[in-house]
Amino acid sequence: MEWQAPKGTRDFYPEDAIIRDYIFDSWRKSCEKYGFEPYDAPVFEHLEVYTQKSGDEIEGQLYTFEDKGGRKLALRPEMTPSLARMVAARCRELKKPIKWYSIPKLFRYEKMQKGRLREFFQLNMDILGIDDVCADAELIAAAIDMLCNLGLSSKDFQVHISSRTLLEQLFLFVGVKQGELLKLYAILDKMNKVTPENFNLMLDEFFTDKNVAQSVKKILSAKTLDEILEINSEIEPILEIKKLFEYLQVLGFQDFVKFDVSVVRGLAYYTGVVFEIFDKKRTMRAIAGGGRYDKLVELYGGQPTPAVGFAVGDVVLCDLLKELNKLPEIKQNCDLFIVSFDKDYANLLKIVKKFRENNFSVQYPLKLGNFGKQMKQANEAGAKIVIFAGSQEESEGNYKLKIMKTGEEKVVLKEEIAKKIREFENF
Amino acid sequence: MEWQAPKGTRDFYPEDAIIRDYIFDSWRKSCEKYGFEPYDAPVFEHLEVYTQKSGDEIEGQLYTFEDKGGRKLALRPEMTPSLARMVAARCRELKKPIKWYSIPKLFRYEKMQKGRLREFFQLNMDILGIDDVCADAELIAAAIDMLCNLGLSSKDFQVHISSRTLLEQLFLFVGVKQGELLKLYAILDKMNKVTPENFNLMLDEFFTDKNVAQSVKKILSAKTLDEILEINSEIEPILEIKKLFEYLQVLGFQDFVKFDVSVVRGLAYYTGVVFEIFDKKRTMRAIAGGGRYDKLVELYGGQPTPAVGFAVGDVVLCDLLKELNKLPEIKQNCDLFIVSFDKDYANLLKIVKKFRENNFSVQYPLKLGNFGKQMKQANEAGAKIVIFAGSQEESEGNYKLKIMKTGEEKVVLKEEIAKKIREFENF
Repeated sequence: MEWQAPKGTRDFYPEDAIIRDYIFDSWRKSCEKYGFEPYDAPVFEHLEVYTQKSGDEIEGQLYTFEDKGGRKLALRPEMTPSLARMVAARCRELKKPIKWYSIPKLFRYEKMQKGRLREFFQLNMDILGIDDVCADAELIAAAIDMLCNLGLSSKDFQVHISSRTLLEQLFLFVGVKQGELLKLYAILDKMNKVTPENFNLMLDEFFTDKNVAQSVKKILSAKTLDEILEINSEIEPILEIKKLFEYLQVLGFQDFVKFDVSVVRGLAYYTGVVFEIFDKKRTMRAIAGGGRYDKLVELYGGQPTPAVGFAVGDVVLCDLLKELNKLPEIKQNCDLFIVSFDKDYANLLKIVKKFRENNFSVQYPLKLGNFGKQMKQANEAGAKIVIFAGSQEESEGNYKLKIMKTGEEKVVLKEEIAKKIREFENF
Repeated sequence: MEWQAPKGTRDFYPEDAIIRDYIFDSWRKSCEKYGFEPYDAPVFEHLEVYTQKSGDEIEGQLYTFEDKGGRKLALRPEMTPSLARMVAARCRELKKPIKWYSIPKLFRYEKMQKGRLREFFQLNMDILGIDDVCADAELIAAAIDMLCNLGLSSKDFQVHISSRTLLEQLFLFVGVKQGELLKLYAILDKMNKVTPENFNLMLDEFFTDKNVAQSVKKILSAKTLDEILEINSEIEPILEIKKLFEYLQVLGFQDFVKFDVSVVRGLAYYTGVVFEIFDKKRTMRAIAGGGRYDKLVELYGGQPTPAVGFAVGDVVLCDLLKELNKLPEIKQNCDLFIVSFDKDYANLLKIVKKFRENNFSVQYPLKLGNFGKQMKQANEAGAKIVIFAGSQEESEGNYKLKIMKTGEEKVVLKEEIAKKIREFENF
């Protein structure tokens, strides 16, 4: 029998856990800088929480099981349904805007591919209660800043922004009929999967009116927002997305964002602005994605609550940080390692106690080997300073110590030791 | 349809998530102070990982489900099997001692009771690779310090310590036969569940030799380690536990620990020292528990690896901290909240940008209401300082601001603003 982690999951040995915690800490700091508060929900929900949003088909992609009471439960594949359920339950009491973040572990029962695991983490940030595009701007700004705090710049990633309503109203404006929209979206979904020639052929076949086909192609080939504005600069969603780009410019993020009509996002629940963040070279899956979902809280029995949110997964992001060499080298360390000259263990422990009471992180040999072995352990523990217990100097009222970085040895008065060590370590 | 979290699980709204994060942060700091490194494992494992340790009966207490490949998986009910599996897989490469910690979410499919939920968190700390009681002392010291860092003292909790091997060897020493041990343990399990009289009757019935019955009663009624030493002060496990108490005394924790022969711990895998931490009033379940388990890594195909560990759950601990009023009041806050005098949103955003670039946490109204409404939002966001965008002073090269704690209003030169604010806030 070989004992392995289940397929699609990961063991985090310390070298990986330290990296993960570094990313999580950075995420938390970014969220707090932007005034987002933490929340969390159970790892599993009643299955209906997910089918309510995504239909019964979703069940095939979920890990499901039964409750003692025979109710069907599912491991959470995404955080937004739990968020919507929680907000719906306290809709009236919660002060608006609601700015919440969470770092859930999520589970998807799907085929393994590069950048996709069955168990992974996400940072989710959401703003609820604001029906204005300034919330979208704040959220996208927060997303960009979060990536910058991890060492990335506009050379490394870009936010591709579009709008569901914009596309819909533009299509209607150029003569697409309401009843044709759904089928048109199905074709759009093929846009980046077939050659441009074949895509154009599909559009030509779909529309009987050549002018409409031509206009749709023009919309879809727009490379900038200005090209869209040339088609129509007056309908509401266009004014909105224009405002969004203006806000993002004032906030200093113009180099990070671009209009991209091809971003539609698979999920049916988006109702306005949608965006995806890609690495600049476009060699990877999307790093993050999000958008406006104004109808979801109602779906869980809450009052109508406008909402905008995004999620960034740990897997693709971590791959990108590795590729760009942006992950810091974080090593296990401790302030002090106490070694014993004379093998008087009680005396060694007494010194450990003294320094721990002074709030130093302290390690020591749990089994006293010879001196060389003890120094090797001090090295492995990443000790900044080694203190020699049971030295000649100790009996004379001093501590003998070694500053590991420089190799210097010092003798320090016992009363001054805590102060001196803080100096040596450059606290 | 009412949308609720599944039975036995919790939603963490921000007020609860903030408390949880405070406890987790404190746990992490405690672990790092003692030189423990983080690790993590999947939320579910192959079912065999759990039955290997606890037998097939365990399945009734697990949430189980199937993999695409038809393999049985289970949500983790405890962390130690994953730890043992991970250590076993890299036994040779991992440097000893292994000092690891993790804060897993765990799942038990059991009857709900006070202090028990179906989904909960634990801090797990383990030391592997040291077969000496000094590892047990270090671990117990770390456990005590971890609780002290949350504001608890020896007035609030106590570590009850015993030893599996000590009890066994003492029983054999006073004449209990090897074949009687298992049945005797079954009786011991009733010790705190029946009256002392009935318990003594059970022992009298069990032993045909009155002297043996008498000696067993004497062992079980020992209130201190000294009383045990009177019975026998020479066998190895007694010397060991004596050394353990000596180490804990030198480390300064004598007021936190007591010998308690009644601690046996339910789990079959403990092989030496065992301990449980209780609130001093004994009105709650155990806060934490642990002990030595020298055989477990082998069970997962690893080399023989001595090990000692403990776990503390979040539910009972949090109840205790609440009862003793030890949870700090943590409020959402931000350095700065920018309000707008003149409703020039672009100008407001420009100021937001400036201060965020200076690494302040900044909030602002996502929808511009009247001035009173904006100030109310600043209050709700816990702003330390409010900056008035679009003020008369601004056009003269200054910022006008209000220090929220004192109500003072100030006018500060734009160039000096970042420095001044850090002064006002007492950074």
